[in-house]
Amino acid sequence: MSIQIQAIQQVFHKHVVLDNLNLTIEPNKIYGLLGRNGAGKSTLLNIISNRIQPTSGRVEIDGESVHDNDRALGKLFLMSEVDLYSERSKVAQLFKLTAQFYGDFDFDYAARLAKAFGLDTNARFGKLSTGYRSIFKLILALCVPVNYVFLDEPVLGLDANHRDLFYQELIETYSERPRTFVISTHLIEEIANLIEHVFVLDNHHIVVNGEVSDILAKAYLISGPQTDVQQYTDGLNVIGEDHLGSITAEYVYGALDNNRPIPDTVQIEHLDLQKLFVSLTNTKEASGNHEH
Amino acid sequence: MSIQIQAIQQVFHKHVVLDNLNLTIEPNKIYGLLGRNGAGKSTLLNIISNRIQPTSGRVEIDGESVHDNDRALGKLFLMSEVDLYSERSKVAQLFKLTAQFYGDFDFDYAARLAKAFGLDTNARFGKLSTGYRSIFKLILALCVPVNYVFLDEPVLGLDANHRDLFYQELIETYSERPRTFVISTHLIEEIANLIEHVFVLDNHHIVVNGEVSDILAKAYLISGPQTDVQQYTDGLNVIGEDHLGSITAEYVYGALDNNRPIPDTVQIEHLDLQKLFVSLTNTKEASGNHEH
Repeated sequence: MSIQIQAIQQVFHKHVVLDNLNLTIEPNKIYGLLGRNGAGKSTLLNIISNRIQPTSGRVEIDGESVHDNDRALGKLFLMSEVDLYSERSKVAQLFKLTAQFYGDFDFDYAARLAKAFGLDTNARFGKLSTGYRSIFKLILALCVPVNYVFLDEPVLGLDANHRDLFYQELIETYSERPRTFVISTHLIEEIANLIEHVFVLDNHHIVVNGEVSDILAKAYLISGPQTDVQQYTDGLNVIGEDHLGSITAEYVYGALDNNRPIPDTVQIEHLDLQKLFVSLTNTKEASGNHEH
Repeated sequence: MSIQIQAIQQVFHKHVVLDNLNLTIEPNKIYGLLGRNGAGKSTLLNIISNRIQPTSGRVEIDGESVHDNDRALGKLFLMSEVDLYSERSKVAQLFKLTAQFYGDFDFDYAARLAKAFGLDTNARFGKLSTGYRSIFKLILALCVPVNYVFLDEPVLGLDANHRDLFYQELIETYSERPRTFVISTHLIEEIANLIEHVFVLDNHHIVVNGEVSDILAKAYLISGPQTDVQQYTDGLNVIGEDHLGSITAEYVYGALDNNRPIPDTVQIEHLDLQKLFVSLTNTKEASGNHEH
């Protein structure tokens, strides 16, 4: 039981968006899928859910290809930025429509969530603000009877209170009915404590694939006078640096050298996930301004 | 020299959105304008910039009404979520158009910013992704020759690297050419160190109006065993609480009682701005799902 992403290649207009991507998504786990704007996260999610065809490669759910396979596709739900819903339909009607496609739907939970978020289920989809469109789609995502839920920018336009509420509801529903969530977001620090495993997509490749705790254990911020810091980090995997007055901070990703003495003037701390991400992906500008 | 918002009342379809609002926006200061979704922030910004007419009340810039007054309106720029630009125009053309309206434009700085953010100035506006539309509008906002810049959700859709870059550029351009910025955003913690003064709009009223440092100085998180915490906070202005196992945390906004002994079991810390905001505005659901 898992989703297997096998040798996925995606080329748009001679531009390589995803290059030989291989990933395994396991049951009952919360993942973060991180990447710069234009890194190809949405493309990957659209391939997994059969909304677009990859140039080559294959996606399997529990051993079956997703390609035009409704049975396999019925096991996943993709909440995306794209609005697939009729502007004139009412929220409550769209709940029913979703129930028809998936064969079931947790109407009680949807009603509780709508109340908690202040979503009027009699409102027409087209009349909802950006934030409330996200809330509507989040409710669908939490109430469908699937084992794999993909959330692309789930909190776009949500205020801080609603973001908090969503993170709490996610933890609660996950502990009541364990299933897989893959969350793609730019608000990395806010999900750092929610996710167990992280994928970082950069420059058409997966550059980080591991447990969050393992990754943060080897992400360091080393600060002090420039010469002392540079002497200490010489030969280590320095992924970025910042300066503040006479103090230099270098970011290191990977093992430190335990045999090397730490100068008294040098401080070593752990990096947070957002800072690690920014440093790892800051080397070049994302190449595309456009949506795919 | 200032912007005066005088007794602004806004009613849509018999629904009061803003109720007798009075504010002063001073020169050369960075403000945060915070509020829940639907609290009326965008409405207020649209009134200040004469895009909509208030039901009653008046906005003055440097002593002149903004109402249909191009000279006064030429002193401010509003970057908003609404896209006012022709889908078919190229980015570089829109820079020129903006220069015509404002009489001047910092083309050199715009070119540097476009390069730093990876924005193709030959791209047509309609082809830009959500993130790059924000970047394009941010560049306009930083390059127009005005003294009052209003930024409504400036980082919507921006990845973490681009958000960092924007905050750095804002600090730099502000120190080179001091002017007023009013930033409305849901990413409160990210701007907490940038802003000097904060307005919080809730339930049609301004509920907080002050210097960030003063406000945070009187925002407390008081934690420990429930009975000890409640005994200590009895009579104080408790704005929220959380529970984790047997530990209770209460949030207090306002002076503590210095004569009251602090039990050994009780910890007192300061709240951050986002947590303070969430607690202050969490009492009821925002009433509107709709955009105004």
